[in-house]
Amino acid sequence: MQTLVVYDISDDDIRLKVSDACKRFGLTRIQRSTFMGYLTSMQRKELTAILRRVLDDADGNIQVFVICKADLALREVLGKPFEAYAKGDLLV
Amino acid sequence: MQTLVVYDISDDDIRLKVSDACKRFGLTRIQRSTFMGYLTSMQRKELTAILRRVLDDADGNIQVFVICKADLALREVLGKPFEAYAKGDLLV
Repeated sequence: MQTLVVYDISDDDIRLKVSDACKRFGLTRIQRSTFMGYLTSMQRKELTAILRRVLDDADGNIQVFVICKADLALREVLGKPFEAYAKGDLLV
Repeated sequence: MQTLVVYDISDDDIRLKVSDACKRFGLTRIQRSTFMGYLTSMQRKELTAILRRVLDDADGNIQVFVICKADLALREVLGKPFEAYAKGDLLV
């Protein structure tokens, strides 16, 4: 299932751990704080458990969404691809 | 339909216009750069058209997702509600 991970975390270390975990699960960064990609239900639950431990009681919020095919067909992408506007940024 | 708007925009003026448009359509801010709420298909298309004009050729990316009931039931929310961790922030 397509899985969307959206986060809002101020702490650099925690944010880096979140992006690293998303990358380890093969998700693609589509915005600075948004990853997306195909995960099985089991993988999604594993990743969610990791993210829950990483964020713990720190300030911030992480949301994990499943996007079915019908919903995916209605997705609208505006602007530039992440690589085009974020080149040179420190990506944590 | 539940509609999710996720954006990544560096320019303060453009980001403010995006958040203002989301608020005008009755969406709720669930993260600094993420809004969610119920929109009809027509409203979603109107909002998307406005966001496309606002972002225009500026650097950044906006994605609009529809989240059906079945997908919404699988949503995982980790951490604190936006109001709890962002109080006092300048919200643009």
